[in-house]
Amino acid sequence: MAQDTVGKSALVVGVGHKDGVGAAVARRFAHEGFEVTIFGRNEAKIATALETLKDINPSAKAEVGDVLDERRIRELVSSCNREASPLEVAVFNAGGNWPKPYLEMDPEFLTEMWQVNALAGFVFSKAAVEAMLPRGRGTIIFTGASGSMRGKANFGGFAQGKAALRALAQSCAREFGPQGLHVAHVVIDGAVDGNRINTLLPYLKGALGEDGLLKPDAIAENYWTLHVQPRSAWTHEIDLRPWVENW
Amino acid sequence: MAQDTVGKSALVVGVGHKDGVGAAVARRFAHEGFEVTIFGRNEAKIATALETLKDINPSAKAEVGDVLDERRIRELVSSCNREASPLEVAVFNAGGNWPKPYLEMDPEFLTEMWQVNALAGFVFSKAAVEAMLPRGRGTIIFTGASGSMRGKANFGGFAQGKAALRALAQSCAREFGPQGLHVAHVVIDGAVDGNRINTLLPYLKGALGEDGLLKPDAIAENYWTLHVQPRSAWTHEIDLRPWVENW
Amino acid sequence: MAQDTVGKSALVVGVGHKDGVGAAVARRFAHEGFEVTIFGRNEAKIATALETLKDINPSAKAEVGDVLDERRIRELVSSCNREASPLEVAVFNAGGNWPKPYLEMDPEFLTEMWQVNALAGFVFSKAAVEAMLPRGRGTIIFTGASGSMRGKANFGGFAQGKAALRALAQSCAREFGPQGLHVAHVVIDGAVDGNRINTLLPYLKGALGEDGLLKPDAIAENYWTLHVQPRSAWTHEIDLRPWVENW
Amino acid sequence: MAQDTVGKSALVVGVGHKDGVGAAVARRFAHEGFEVTIFGRNEAKIATALETLKDINPSAKAEVGDVLDERRIRELVSSCNREASPLEVAVFNAGGNWPKPYLEMDPEFLTEMWQVNALAGFVFSKAAVEAMLPRGRGTIIFTGASGSMRGKANFGGFAQGKAALRALAQSCAREFGPQGLHVAHVVIDGAVDGNRINTLLPYLKGALGEDGLLKPDAIAENYWTLHVQPRSAWTHEIDLRPWVENW
Repeated sequence: MAQDTVGKSALVVGVGHKDGVGAAVARRFAHEGFEVTIFGRNEAKIATALETLKDINPSAKAEVGDVLDERRIRELVSSCNREASPLEVAVFNAGGNWPKPYLEMDPEFLTEMWQVNALAGFVFSKAAVEAMLPRGRGTIIFTGASGSMRGKANFGGFAQGKAALRALAQSCAREFGPQGLHVAHVVIDGAVDGNRINTLLPYLKGALGEDGLLKPDAIAENYWTLHVQPRSAWTHEIDLRPWVENW
Repeated sequence: MAQDTVGKSALVVGVGHKDGVGAAVARRFAHEGFEVTIFGRNEAKIATALETLKDINPSAKAEVGDVLDERRIRELVSSCNREASPLEVAVFNAGGNWPKPYLEMDPEFLTEMWQVNALAGFVFSKAAVEAMLPRGRGTIIFTGASGSMRGKANFGGFAQGKAALRALAQSCAREFGPQGLHVAHVVIDGAVDGNRINTLLPYLKGALGEDGLLKPDAIAENYWTLHVQPRSAWTHEIDLRPWVENW
Repeated sequence: MAQDTVGKSALVVGVGHKDGVGAAVARRFAHEGFEVTIFGRNEAKIATALETLKDINPSAKAEVGDVLDERRIRELVSSCNREASPLEVAVFNAGGNWPKPYLEMDPEFLTEMWQVNALAGFVFSKAAVEAMLPRGRGTIIFTGASGSMRGKANFGGFAQGKAALRALAQSCAREFGPQGLHVAHVVIDGAVDGNRINTLLPYLKGALGEDGLLKPDAIAENYWTLHVQPRSAWTHEIDLRPWVENW
Repeated sequence: MAQDTVGKSALVVGVGHKDGVGAAVARRFAHEGFEVTIFGRNEAKIATALETLKDINPSAKAEVGDVLDERRIRELVSSCNREASPLEVAVFNAGGNWPKPYLEMDPEFLTEMWQVNALAGFVFSKAAVEAMLPRGRGTIIFTGASGSMRGKANFGGFAQGKAALRALAQSCAREFGPQGLHVAHVVIDGAVDGNRINTLLPYLKGALGEDGLLKPDAIAENYWTLHVQPRSAWTHEIDLRPWVENW
C-alpha cells in the first residue's frame, strides 16, 4: 500500500475554515509527504488553514480565489503539476447548501447553486484530467452529500447541483478510468462537526451525542484510502455517516 | 377514472417536430377535451404540430419562444390558467442531448445543457406550481431520460442536466404532493421513433426491428395515465423502453 | 389502446380479502372482459372475493391453495391457459410482511418470508412464462413494496424477501422482454386502505386524512395500464404512494 | 487510526482457495495481529489457506463445515468470542454464483442460491451481533457482487440471493449501527483474479490486461479499511471494480 510520495503534489479546492473537511483532507495528504496546495475564497480562513498545513509540511501553499474563475483554476492546476512533483491528487470540495422552499428559489439562486456545486467541479476536474492523463495516473475525488442522491423538500437547489456533480463524476470515471485515472465520489450523509454546525446549530452536537457528527479527520482518512487503492480494485462511490445517523 | 375535462387547460413546453414526444403528449390531452397550448422555439415545426392539434380540438394554441425566457414562461403559464379553464396539466418536455467527450466540453456548453435541461424545468414548474397551488390540484410532468439515472462516458453534459432536473422533480414532488399537486418524472430509456432518429440514424429503426424504437403516442399515453391517477395512489417515476431494449 | 379481450384469461394469485389489492386487480381485468381466476389460501375470503368478481363477469373462477405448492401452481397456470382463452395476464400478489427485530428472527421465519415473497413469485412467473412464451405475448406483474427498495430496522425479513423478488422480476424482464413478454414490478410505497390496516391500525386512516391510504381500486388501475402498454414503450417499474406520504 | 489489536479476534466464513477473497481478508487481519479463524467447506483448501495464515500469525485457526449449519455457526462465533480476545470482526464471504436461464431454474436451485447467499449471511450476522452487542462494538462485513444491485438475464438465482443479502445488511446496519456495531456491504463488481476465473476462463486474464481482474489482496485491504473507520464516519457500502471495467 505504501507509495513513494516524494515529489508528488495534491490540490484541494473548496477549503474554508481550518476545522472543515477541505483543510482536513489537505492535512491528510500533507502527512504523507505530498506538496499540498489549498484553494478557497476566504483569505483569513485559508491563511489559518495554511498554518495548520505548514506545521505538517512546510511545502504547503495556499491561494485565494473563486472556483468559478475558469482561467484561474486552470492556472492553479497547471502550477501544481510540476515536473518534479506531478499532480497526483485533485480534490473538489467546494459547494454550498442553502435550503430554500421551491417557490422562494429563483433562476439566479438556482444558477449559483449549480455553478458552485457542479460547474466548478467540472472545470476543476477537466483541468485535473488534462494534467494527469499524459502520465496515465492520478486520483480525482468529488465531495458529495445526501442531496447528491435525492431531492427533498426545501433542498431542491442544493440537490440539483449535487446530483449534477454526481452525474459528472460518473461520466468522468467511466471515461478516464480505463485510461488510468481513479475518479471517486464521496457521499457525506450527515452533519459535519465543523465550524458551521457548531456556530449555527450549537445544540445539535449535544443532541447527537459523542461522535454523532462527522469528524473532518475521519472523513479525510477516506480520501486518502481512495487514493491508495490499487487500480485492480477501485471504488467509485462511498457513503459516510455517523453511527447514530438515521438513514 | 373519467374526469370532467371541459374547461381545463394543458400546457406542453418543449414541443418540436409534429412527430415528437411533445406534440404527441399535447394531442393526447386534446383528445380528452383539454384546451392545449404548445410552446417551442421553432416556428415552422410548432405551426405544423399545431395543425395536428387543431384537427383534434380547435381550441389548441401554439406559441413560439425560448424556455429560458423566464418572463415569457411565466406569462405563458399565466395565460393558460384562465378562470374558465384552469391549468390542470403542465408538461416539461424541453431538453437536449448532445454527446461530447469530457475534455471537449467547456463551461458554456455545460451551462447550456444545464439551462435547457434543468433550469428551464425549474422556471416552468415553479410557475405551474404557483398557478395550481391556490386550487390545490394539478399535474406537473417532467420528461427524463436514461441520462437522468447515470452519467456515462461522453454523456456528461446531458446527464448532469437531466440528473439535476430529476432532483428538482423529486424536491417539487415532496414539497407539493401533500398540497395536492401530482409531480411526476418519466424516464425515457431508449431511442424515440421520431424525426431526429430517422434523420440521423436511419439504419437504427431497421436494426431494432418493429416497435424497437419508442413511439411518441405510446409515450404520450403514459402522461395521460399519470394525470388521471387518483391522489390515493400517485406514481412519481416510471421508466419506458422498447421491448427489445437491452438495459 | 383498446384490445380485443374476448377469449383472454387473467390469473391473480395472492388474493385475500375482497377489499384487498388482489381482488381489486382481478375485478379490473374482469371489467375488461377477461376470464379471471383468483387464487388464495383462505377459503372464506376467496369465496367472498369471487362473488364480487362474478357480479362483473360470471366466467370468474376461484381456487383455494398454497402459492408454495409448485405442482398446484403449475396446474393452475396451465388450466388458465386455454386455447379459446389463452393466459394473457399473470399477477403475483402474494406476500407477507411481519416486522420483527433482527435478533428475534430465526432461519424458519426468514425462510418463510423468502418463500412466500420470493420463491412463490418465481414458481408462478416461471409457469406463466412457459404458458405465454409460445405465443410471444403476455403480461406478468409482481407486487412490490417499500421494502423491495431498502432494508429498514425491524423489517429485514420482509425486505430480503421483497428485494429477492425484485431481482427476479428484473431478471425475468430482461430475459423475456425481447421475446415479447411484458414483465413489470409495482412498488406499493405506503399503507393500503384495506381490511388489514383498518383492523390493525384503525386510527391510521383518520390520522392520514382523505385518500391518505392507498385505495386498492386505484392501485389496480395501474396493473391494467401496465398491461395495455404497447411494446414500443414498456414500463418495468412504477412506484405508488398516497399524496400525503412522506418519502 | 492505529488500534490496539492485541487480544482481538476476527472470523471469516466462506473461505475457499488460498488465492481467494476470503483467505486474503483473513490474512489482512492476521497481519494486524488479530487471532483469525477461517471457516469453509473444503478441507483441503482450507488447510492450505490456514498455512498461509499461520505464516503470518501462528494463532490462526481453521474449521471445516457448512455455513448453513446454524448450530455449528453459532458455536463457531461463540468460540471466537473469548474474554481474552473478543470477536471484533466478522466477515461473511460465503456465496455462490451459478448462472442459469430462468426456465432452467427450479425451486431447489433457487432455494440453494438463497440459502448460501442470504440465509447463511443472516445466521452468521445474527450470531455475530449477539456476540458483539454486549460490548457495543464490532464490525460485520458482507461480501456482495454486481448481482446485489440488479437482476440480469440468466443471473436471477444469484441476483435474488445477493439482493436479499443486501437488504439484510441494510436492516442490520440500521438496527445495530446506533448500538455501536459497524455493518458494511462490499459490492465486488467484476471478476476476481483467483483460482476460479483462472481455471474456468483462462483467456480472460489476458484479454483484460494487467490489473484487469480484481486482486484479492486489493479487495481485502478495503475490509480492513472499513474496520478501522471511526464511528463518526462509517461507510455502509462500497463498490470495487478494476480500472478497465465497463460499468
